[in-house]
Amino acid sequence: MRAAIYNGPRDIEVRDRPDPVMAEPTDAIVRVVLACVCGSDLWYYRGESPHDLGPIGHEFLSVVEQVGPAVNGLAEGELVVAPFTYSDGTCPHCLAGWPSNCANGGSFGNHGIDGGQGERVRVPFAEPTLVKVPGSGHSDVTMRSLIALSDVMCTGHHAAVSGNVQPGSVVAVVGDGAVGLCAVIAAKRLGAGRIIALSRNPSRQALAREFGATDILAERGDAAVAAVMDMTGGIGVDAALECVGTGQSMATAFAIARPGSIVGAIGAPHDVEVPINTVIFRNVGLRGGVAPVRRYLPELLNDVLAGRINPGRVFDFETDLEHITDAYAAMDERRAVKSLVRVGELTG
Amino acid sequence: MRAAIYNGPRDIEVRDRPDPVMAEPTDAIVRVVLACVCGSDLWYYRGESPHDLGPIGHEFLSVVEQVGPAVNGLAEGELVVAPFTYSDGTCPHCLAGWPSNCANGGSFGNHGIDGGQGERVRVPFAEPTLVKVPGSGHSDVTMRSLIALSDVMCTGHHAAVSGNVQPGSVVAVVGDGAVGLCAVIAAKRLGAGRIIALSRNPSRQALAREFGATDILAERGDAAVAAVMDMTGGIGVDAALECVGTGQSMATAFAIARPGSIVGAIGAPHDVEVPINTVIFRNVGLRGGVAPVRRYLPELLNDVLAGRINPGRVFDFETDLEHITDAYAAMDERRAVKSLVRVGELTG
Repeated sequence: MRAAIYNGPRDIEVRDRPDPVMAEPTDAIVRVVLACVCGSDLWYYRGESPHDLGPIGHEFLSVVEQVGPAVNGLAEGELVVAPFTYSDGTCPHCLAGWPSNCANGGSFGNHGIDGGQGERVRVPFAEPTLVKVPGSGHSDVTMRSLIALSDVMCTGHHAAVSGNVQPGSVVAVVGDGAVGLCAVIAAKRLGAGRIIALSRNPSRQALAREFGATDILAERGDAAVAAVMDMTGGIGVDAALECVGTGQSMATAFAIARPGSIVGAIGAPHDVEVPINTVIFRNVGLRGGVAPVRRYLPELLNDVLAGRINPGRVFDFETDLEHITDAYAAMDERRAVKSLVRVGELTG
Repeated sequence: MRAAIYNGPRDIEVRDRPDPVMAEPTDAIVRVVLACVCGSDLWYYRGESPHDLGPIGHEFLSVVEQVGPAVNGLAEGELVVAPFTYSDGTCPHCLAGWPSNCANGGSFGNHGIDGGQGERVRVPFAEPTLVKVPGSGHSDVTMRSLIALSDVMCTGHHAAVSGNVQPGSVVAVVGDGAVGLCAVIAAKRLGAGRIIALSRNPSRQALAREFGATDILAERGDAAVAAVMDMTGGIGVDAALECVGTGQSMATAFAIARPGSIVGAIGAPHDVEVPINTVIFRNVGLRGGVAPVRRYLPELLNDVLAGRINPGRVFDFETDLEHITDAYAAMDERRAVKSLVRVGELTG
C-alpha cells in the first residue's frame, strides 16, 4: 500500500509499505477514504516536537475491510470514524469516560501504529474504538464533516465542555485555527449567548461568524485583553477557550476569564506557563487536554448526520495522498486552515 | 486599642493604635474575641512575600459594637464570623458566588484595613460580609471552631469543592497544615470513600485520622507518588487536594491525580509551576484559589453548631494578644499546627 512516512522535519514522503495484517483477534483492518492534516502534525513537521520516524496521520474516515474474530458489531464494507486514539474500552480510564487516556491505548500514526495518512490501517481494539456511520450514500459535504469528527470537531467540543460552556454563556475563543473554529461550533451548539472569536484573518473571521461567532476581535495580547474586558463591562468571559497552545494564547485566555470560570484548553503546549497567581488569586481554573473523542463521537455524529453542525467547512485545501506534502505546506504557510487528503474511494 | 502591627520580617509588635471609627454608612465596628495566625501570615513574617506595614490578621470572631445607618440585620452585642475578605454582595463577582473576588472588596489586615489581630475592626460592607452566629453561651470548643470558619475550614472546603470531591471519591490531601487537615474534614463531609493524608508528623497524622483520613502516607515526592499509585491500582486518585502551595506539593498532586480529575489547590503559590503536559496529556484539571468564604459560611456554620464538624481542633497553641509573637513563633518553628489568640471577652 501507499502511505505517508515521516523521515524528519520537512521530510515527508509517500512510499510503498506492506499492507497491515491482523495481529490480534480484536483488530480490524480498514481502508482509508479520507485523511487530513492536523495542526499538531505541524509541530513535528516543523521540527518543534519530537515524533517517531515512520507512518503518520491520526485522522481518518475509512471502510472496514477485515475484522478479527473477537470483534462484534462491525462488518466488512461499513463506513467508520476512528477517534485519533484507540482504546480498549474496559480499563478504569475508559470506564470513567477518558478513552484518550486508555491504559492500553495509543495514537494512530506514531510509535509504529499505522497512520491515517495511508491506504490502510490496522485498528487495535476495533470494537470499542471505531464508530459506525449509519446510512449510506453520504454527500461529500457530509463526508468532510465526518472526518472532522475524528479529532478537530471533538477537540473543539472538548475545549467548550472543559470550559463549562452553558446556555447563555459569554465565551471567548482564543485561536482561529481549525480547532478554534470548531470550538465556536461547539460553544454555539451548547447554547452560548455570545461568542467572541479572536482572529485577524478575514476568511477565518467569516467562517467563525458562519459557525456562530457574534463578535470578532482582531486584537492580540494586551490589546485583546483590554477589548474583551471592555466588551464584558470589566467582568471577563464565562468561558475562555484556549485553542492554540502557546504562552501568549494561554496568558490571554487567563486574563479574560472571569473569577470562578475555567479556561478550556486543548492546544498542544509549547512554552506555556500557567499563570498560577491568576488561578489562585482570581479563582480561574484550567481544564482540557487530549479530547476523549470516542466518548463525544456518538452525539456529535448525530448532529453531523442531521446537518445541525458542519465542521467539514474547516477544510479549505484538498489534494490526494500522492501530493500530501502540498497539504502540509499549505497549512505550514498558513494558506490553508486545514487540508483534506483524498486517499481512496468509498466503494473499494 | 491594642493591635498587632507588622514592622517587617520577624518584627511584629503589639502597640496602641487609635480605635477605628465609622467611615461609611455600610460599616460596622466589631470588638474581637478570638483571632488566630494563618499559615499565609508566615509568608510575610518570614519575609518570603511582600506585605504592607501596619495592622495584620485576617481571621477573627467578634462581637458587633456599632453598626452604620445602612446596615440591616446586625445589632450591637451579636456574635459574628467575618470571612477573611469583605465584599459588597452586589458586584457581578459576588452575585456569581465569588465574594473573595469582589470588585470592591479586600482583605482584612492589609492595605490599611484593620486586622483581626487587634481589639477592634472596622468592617466595610458589614451587612453582606458578616455572618451572625445564632444562639448564645457557646462553649469554648464551639468558639474555636467558629473562628476556624473565617478562613481555614472554608479554605479546606474550597480545596475539596474545587477538586470535585463526590460521595465515594478516593481523595488524597497533600499537606498536613491546618488547611490540609480541614480539607480532610471537608472531604469526609462531602462523602469521600477513602481519604489519603500525606503527613509525616505523628500528631498531625493522629488529627487527620480523627478528621476522617483512612490512610496516612509519610512518604514525600516520588515515593509518595509511587505509594499512592500503588494504593489505587495504578489509577490515581479521584481528587488530589493541594494544600501547601509549593512546587513539590503541586507536582505531587498532579502526579497522583487520575485522568479526568481536578487538582483542588488552595495554597498561596511560591515557586509553583503547573505541569501543563499533565494537564493536556493526562486531562488533569486545576481549580481552587482564594476561598469564597462568605458563600460557604452558612452551611459550614450549621455543621459546626450541630457538632458535625470540629475544625477548632486544629488549634494546638494559644496565647493572648500581648504575646502574639509567641503564636507566630510556634507556627514558624512548626511547634504548632495553628495558633489561637485570645483578644477579648465574649461579653464586653
